[in-house]
Parts: sequence; structure tokens; C-alpha cells
Amino acid sequence: MKAYQQGLERRQANYVPLTPVDLIARAAEVYGDRLAIVYGSVRRTWHHTYTRARQLASALEQAGVGYGDTVAIMLPNTPPMIEAHFGVPMLGAVLNTLNTRLDSDSVLSMLRHGEAKSLIIDTEFSELARRVAMELPELHIICVADVLPADAAYFPRAIDYETFIAMGDPVFAWVTPQDEWDAITLNYTSGTTGDPKGVVYHYRGAYLNAICNILEWDMPKHPVYLWVLPLYHCNGWCFAWTIAARAGVNVCLRKFDVSLIFDLIRRERVTHYCGAPIVQAALADAPAEWREGINHRVHTMMAGAAPAPAIITRIKAIGFELIHVYGLTEVFGPATVCAEQDDWKHLSDGEQSELKARQGVRNHFQRDVEVLDVDTMQSVPADGKTIGEIVIRGNICMKGYLKNESATEAAFTGGWFHTGDLGVMSPDGYVHIKDRKKDIIVSGGENISSIEVENALYHHPAVSVVAVVAMPDLQWGEVPCAFVELKSGSSVTKDELIVHCRTLLAGYKIPRAIYFGDVPKTFTGKIHKIELRKRLQLR
Amino acid sequence: MKAYQQGLERRQANYVPLTPVDLIARAAEVYGDRLAIVYGSVRRTWHHTYTRARQLASALEQAGVGYGDTVAIMLPNTPPMIEAHFGVPMLGAVLNTLNTRLDSDSVLSMLRHGEAKSLIIDTEFSELARRVAMELPELHIICVADVLPADAAYFPRAIDYETFIAMGDPVFAWVTPQDEWDAITLNYTSGTTGDPKGVVYHYRGAYLNAICNILEWDMPKHPVYLWVLPLYHCNGWCFAWTIAARAGVNVCLRKFDVSLIFDLIRRERVTHYCGAPIVQAALADAPAEWREGINHRVHTMMAGAAPAPAIITRIKAIGFELIHVYGLTEVFGPATVCAEQDDWKHLSDGEQSELKARQGVRNHFQRDVEVLDVDTMQSVPADGKTIGEIVIRGNICMKGYLKNESATEAAFTGGWFHTGDLGVMSPDGYVHIKDRKKDIIVSGGENISSIEVENALYHHPAVSVVAVVAMPDLQWGEVPCAFVELKSGSSVTKDELIVHCRTLLAGYKIPRAIYFGDVPKTFTGKIHKIELRKRLQLR
Repeated sequence: MKAYQQGLERRQANYVPLTPVDLIARAAEVYGDRLAIVYGSVRRTWHHTYTRARQLASALEQAGVGYGDTVAIMLPNTPPMIEAHFGVPMLGAVLNTLNTRLDSDSVLSMLRHGEAKSLIIDTEFSELARRVAMELPELHIICVADVLPADAAYFPRAIDYETFIAMGDPVFAWVTPQDEWDAITLNYTSGTTGDPKGVVYHYRGAYLNAICNILEWDMPKHPVYLWVLPLYHCNGWCFAWTIAARAGVNVCLRKFDVSLIFDLIRRERVTHYCGAPIVQAALADAPAEWREGINHRVHTMMAGAAPAPAIITRIKAIGFELIHVYGLTEVFGPATVCAEQDDWKHLSDGEQSELKARQGVRNHFQRDVEVLDVDTMQSVPADGKTIGEIVIRGNICMKGYLKNESATEAAFTGGWFHTGDLGVMSPDGYVHIKDRKKDIIVSGGENISSIEVENALYHHPAVSVVAVVAMPDLQWGEVPCAFVELKSGSSVTKDELIVHCRTLLAGYKIPRAIYFGDVPKTFTGKIHKIELRKRLQLR
Repeated sequence: MKAYQQGLERRQANYVPLTPVDLIARAAEVYGDRLAIVYGSVRRTWHHTYTRARQLASALEQAGVGYGDTVAIMLPNTPPMIEAHFGVPMLGAVLNTLNTRLDSDSVLSMLRHGEAKSLIIDTEFSELARRVAMELPELHIICVADVLPADAAYFPRAIDYETFIAMGDPVFAWVTPQDEWDAITLNYTSGTTGDPKGVVYHYRGAYLNAICNILEWDMPKHPVYLWVLPLYHCNGWCFAWTIAARAGVNVCLRKFDVSLIFDLIRRERVTHYCGAPIVQAALADAPAEWREGINHRVHTMMAGAAPAPAIITRIKAIGFELIHVYGLTEVFGPATVCAEQDDWKHLSDGEQSELKARQGVRNHFQRDVEVLDVDTMQSVPADGKTIGEIVIRGNICMKGYLKNESATEAAFTGGWFHTGDLGVMSPDGYVHIKDRKKDIIVSGGENISSIEVENALYHHPAVSVVAVVAMPDLQWGEVPCAFVELKSGSSVTKDELIVHCRTLLAGYKIPRAIYFGDVPKTFTGKIHKIELRKRLQLR
């Protein structure tokens, strides 16, 4: 081997740390005049967007932000959100996107924990901004007055985003990271578990996942991508960088609005969007006339929660091409894909949906996905039955949790990232989630997958959204309890639903209680099961 | 930055050296039953091909080959050639593909210089094999008796390839490289310059270029790829790995045969192939009836020599979709792409071909391509006129030349890889080659691009292949001299060609001598200009 190493070291000409910033640089170089951003009446090219990101980087640097400092942002899917995904890493700072649904206590604790130097915040969140300005007098605040003007009462020290970037150098010389293992972003896991952890992404993984998205989706150059999926969620599964890599169009979207989504798909000829099952269901259930005039092919990528097969069938019914992927914040968003096989085409729609609802196989750039017995850490048999924990390893996996070594070590036990999701390995090598570790219902010594019960209920035509959780029971320990949201204009009784479940589930899996009403959930399609469990205890 | 580094080191779960071997592993896992190899009556799946590669790795290991040892191969584009591209790196050995056109002296010097432990050689090269066996008694020889049986007189010690791999473990646990910077292959530059250098590729670059090919070509899953381009040339521009990454079909081809190529395109529904301009010209000039029945879309990637715009027009005329890329052995094959722009569509075919004949912009994963003044090493102005040297840097660039530090240092002067090609930077940022450094003709103090003169001659309908070189001249120092190969059935006189050139070239650029006859060239489309210069000296 010696001959192959001597005088053949890495050097400037043949080695450069991977960074997604280079993706926008190339888009601007090669396709500078092509459309990059659409937002209301705003239409900007890649050259313009690249310039604005450089100005942002330069202005942040002038404001004292340096390599490795944290810049927090609380923005909807508007153009500054895209710009920050390039501008912040352009100076080697770490981008910390905050979930816009968070309460001010959570935001304050994240800003403190992440040691944010700057905060870019939309005037939609004025109330929160005021509290943050009060409690963190050192924090440098930049406000995006996009829809609402900035009221000085709420933004006492803030500088306007447009004024701020106007001070920046439009040809700022952005930095390549010192090491591709350096931190690029900080993503706090959703607060639903009560203990948010700061997931740290590295440049290498961000770059590779941006490209991996292209491979999973066979995404050609110049897609038109609609920002339904929030960018604060795993950096939009890394799609901000993917769309730059493809020199596509970012169609921005301030808030989830089904009618507007169809309008944009039609008007901008949107080719791709991502969304959680709950988002897909809302689109599939919308009045058919909203879709009129959409004659081009629309591709959608779904993840964020284990989907009911019925949702896959409903999306297919409206003519969208769906790909189902699975992942978590810790693996930069998608980590597995339910890769379609040719011979599935001969199956019925229902059978196809059952197969496609599985989480699938490792992504192109992910090295290993396994289901391990929780005690022995050995692979479970590929029998589609034996439940174990889904574990992942590869290059698209976080550095760890910020300032939380014990959680980091626990997550990486035995050389794997532990997802906390319980699933089975199908005989064809496809992983299939049965439940979150904490959501499994143990009834009379039997494990009941809350997802299986939910899927049964989703098969009923009146059902829109379902969540099943464990309800304490003196005799059985736990029994399944269902919370059901009906489609508008539909009705069904508890007894009818129980009769329906009997046709699909073993007796002990049938919900012992069913409550109708809104199911509490986040915009990203996660259902607040903790909240539901609390409700049961209060009853 | 400290907080982002503490307790957040690389570990097994989140970092793994990139290796193209993983691409075939995934193809076999996810698409194991899909077709991977077509060769005559041989049709093998990805599962089967993966298994055979593992057997090859295992058998080599049993034969004493270890991590960092060199395994040389001299094979046409047959299945063992594909298998070796995975089997050899599976044990961390270095694959050294030898140009099948080489004479035995060159091969011997390469085997000695590369310290090959094993040689896999096709019985087509029996004469050469005998000499190698005689001169290198320590060399372990494996022979592929595919078309011709192995004659013991020529292969005294050789073991048959099929017998050899049958001894290997079909579930051999292949190794991930210790470092993605380790050597994966060794490619000697073509002997046309008289001084072959051993270009060493690293795993990182091989993996990235395999993926980059997909992006340049928007190549969807499951392409049907025809092996026109020799795999011994930059590892087939890394396409052996690309096709595994896409779980496509490798349609093998023992030798270049235009009629067979069209048969295979028709029969196997080939979607993609690569080829040098000379290969493209041969296909474009073939009788139209050979193409009958080909109604699907065929994509071709062209590189290997600066193409005349006329060749691009001719390929377009037969309905193939062409993408023009540019590169060298030192950058793993393609490094730039002549990315098409929307507004070119409004131009005439001829104008489009002129634009597309340029070498273009950096590939997606290449970091920088520039044209530098040879003296000052500063960028030349983007005026389409000022000539400088084309230089490249990024992650898809060799480790260096094996055991040749002075050549390595020279190639990497000033932090760039120096291509030795002279070109200009167009105002739109596209690089355009004017000549090889050594091919430029200096006449009366003026630089004449041999390519420009060749392009003018290619515009004549009777001309098939042209090479223009400098001819010594007492008055002018050098003058252009053209060697011209005519299309079959066509005829033209020297005077007619000179009259033709007058309409396209300045007076001092018009060839002073024109010779008709076969132009000496390699299978890969490089013209032996050294050979032509020799002829001129002998006259």
C-alpha cells in the first residue's frame, strides 16, 4: 500500500470539504438567469438569490457572527428562509431553524441552549419576539416584515431584514468549511416528548442527503418545487439544498392552505412537493373542482408519520405520483424509501397501498438499516412478524445532540443510531414500522400496534384522522382507545366503527373507547399522543 | 465552535468511507432480481453479479492478494470486466485496467511499475500473455477463455477465470476502505505521449463521479447502458459504478462493431451509451437501414477529444440525444459538461452545434474549472479569445501519479490540476478548447489552433476524419498540415479542400499540405498526432 500513499496526499486541487453552499454557487454560475424563487409577486433568479444569500452572510459577519456561531431563525416558508439556508453556512455559522408552532418558553430555552447570537424572525411572531427581546437583551434580532409591518413595541431593537442584507457585500467570498464534519445546522426535535434535543447536522451529511433526494425521486433538472413541508423540519428534509442542486424553482408558501396549494400547482406548474400523511389526506379530500385544470404530472414524497395504506390509495386516486420515505430528525429527514418493484404493478390498488405503506429499504446514500431485537441487539428474522427496533447507520446521520453526551451515547449504542421506532423486517427486506417504542399498547401481555388499529379505522370511509393510544385498564393493564376526526359531511357512530373494526382486527385489538373530535397535531403531521394520554388521565 | 465539536465526533453509526462497492451491494439488496448483465446468451441479475464479484474478491484473497495490492486486468468490455470493478476493491486491492491495444513492452513496464500481483487476461491476448508469463514468472495469471479456449502454450501457469471464482466465497464479507482517500484504481495514461504515467484514483472520487454521471445525464433508475466506451479508459468514465447505482443493465460488447451496436440498441432497447467523437461519427455515418426499428429515445454522452460541431449535427440528425462532456484520465473521465441553455433552442442546428462543441462548465461535483494565463496563473478574461490553460480542482481529481512525485507536483502546480489543454473562457462562462498545449501550431509568430482547422475541414461533406498537425517550415517555422480520411463513396481533391477552407479560415490557417488516407487512432478516439508528426519528418 505504501506506494499508493507516498506523495499522493490530499491537497487543494483534489480535495475540498463537501458543502451544500456550492450547490447554489453552481446554480448561479450555470443557470443564473433561471427562476429560483416564486412568492406572491416576487420572482427571483438564481443569480439574484445567490447574491442575496451572500449579502446575508456578509451582513451577519459585519454584525459579529463568526465561524461556528449559532444563528436562529423563526420563519415560515418564505424567501428569507431559503436564503438563510445558504447565507448562514456561507460564513460557517450554524443555522438553527425554530418550529414556528413553539411557545415562547420553548423558544427561549432553545435560544439559550443553542447560544444563538442572532435571531431572524417574521413579524407574524410579534408577541414571541417581544418576550425574547425582553429576556435576552444580548440577542441580535433581525425582523422580516413581510406581511405585517414591524411594530416598534414588539421589535424594540430589531433591524429590518431588507435593510440588514442591503448592507452586505453582494460578492461576499463565502467560506468552505474547515472540515466537512463541522456543524451546519441545529434542529431541535419536536417538543412533543417534553424533552427537546438539539440535533447537530454536519456539512457532509447535508450535501449527501441533498443529492440523495434527487436519486430517490429520479428528479430531473429544473423541477418546480412547492414548499408545503416546513423548512424548520429537518431543513425541509434538505430540499432547500436539493432544489439548488437541480437549479429548480422554489415556490414559497407562508401557510398551509389547500385551495392555495392547488392554485399554485396549477399556475406555477408545480412538479414536486413533500408532505406528511395528514397533509396528503387534506389534499386528497379536497373538493375535486379545486384540482381542475391540473393536467401535468405531480410527484409527491410522503414521510413524517407512518401512513395508513388508505391514504396512499386516496392520493393515487387524485392522480399524484407518490413515493413513501421514512426518517427522523436525527437522520436529516428521509433515511429509507419504499422502493417500488415492477411486479407490484400486477396487484390491486389496495394490495399495492399495503406494500407501499411500509418504510422500505435504505436510501441510496444510507449504509445500513436493520431491525434489531431490543435485548440482544441481533437482527430479527425477516419474517414480517418479529418486532424489533429500527436502527440506521451511514453518512447521513447526525453528529449527535448538542451538549447532551448521555443522550448522544444512548442514541448511538452499539454502533447504530436507534430510532425508537418498533418494526418488523419483511421477507423481501422491507422494514415496516409497527409503532413508536412509547406508543405500543400492552394489553393482557399482548403487544398491540397502535398503527395497526389506526389503519383499520382509516379504512372506514367516514374517517379523516385517527389516533390510537393506550388507556389504563384495571383488568388488562392497557387497552386501545381511539380519537377520531370525521370527514366534513360524514357521520358514523361508535358502535358502527367497532363493528367495522371487528371485520379487520383481532378482538383484543378493538378500541375499548372511541372519542370524536379534533385530534391535536402539529403542522408537520405529528399527532400529540402525549396530549391525548393526558386527556385520558383527566377523564 | 467548541460546543459543536465536543462529544460529537465521527463514529461508526454516522461516518463510513465512501466506496462504489456499496452501490452494487444496494442494487443486489433492493433490485436483486433485475437484469444486470447482457452478453450474448448470458443474462445475469444484480444478485448473481454481486455474488460473482464477491467470489472474485474471495478467490483473490485466497490467492494471496491483500489490501493495497495491485490487480491488473486486460479485458474487453465483457462481464468479467464489470465484475472486476467491484470484486477487486471488495478486498481493498487496486484495480489496474490495461489498454487492450497496448504492445507487450508497454504492458510489461506497467505491470512492473504497478507491482501487479495478479493479472486477469482474455485469451484474445494470448501472444501477449505468453510473453508476460515468461518475463514475470512471479505474476499470478487468471485467464478468461470466453471466445477462444486457453491454449496451454500461451497460458502455461494460468488458471481459468470461471474455475478461479468458483473457489470464492459467494457471501464474502467485503471490506469498506480504511480511508476514502485510499487508492481504488490505477489507470495508465495512453502511451501516445511516449511517457505513460500511472494515475491513481481514490474511493471518494470514484463514488462521487459515479453519482455525478447520474446528475449530468438526469439518468433515471434502470437505464439500459451499452458498453461502447472501453472500461479500461478511466474505468469507463466510472460508469461501471454508475450503472450499479441506478440498478441498470450493462449490455456488454467485446469489440466495436457499428452494425452490432445498432442491433443491440434495437434488441435490448438500449437507452444510454458513451463514445468519443470518432465513434459517434462512425454511428452517424452508418447506413440508415441499420437503424431501422429503433423508435425509442437513445441518449449518448460524448467526450475523449474535442468534437467538431459537424459531428454534433450529424448525431442529432440520426435522432440521438447528445450531451457533450470533457475530461481527462486525471479527473476520472468527465469534469465539465456543455450544459444546454433554454435560449439555445431558438438557434439554427449549426449554431447550436457550435455552442455544444464547447467543453462547457464544471460538472455538478467538480469545484472549479478555470482558464489561466500560462505565465501569470491568473484567469484570462472571459472574452472567448484569450488563450490560457484549462485547470481544474475539486473532489474528482486523482491522488497523483504513482511513484512519480515530480510529475505529480508539476500537474498540481499552484493548487490546480493542469490539463495541458489550451482554451478560452467564453463570455457566458463556458470553457472552449483551442488545442492541446503540444498541438498548437506556431506559424510566423501566430498561434493556429489545430482544432479550428480540423473543424473547417469537417464541414466538407466528403470528409470523415481529419487530423491537423504542425509541419516544419523554413520560412514560417511551422505550417498546418492535414491528414484526411474520406467517407466511403465520397471523393474530393486537395485543391477543392483548400478552396473550401478559404471560405472558413484566415489565409495563414489554411493547410499547406493535405494527405489522404487512414488516420492512425486508438479505439478511444484519440488520434496519434505524434505518429503523424513522425511521418512528416520522414517525408
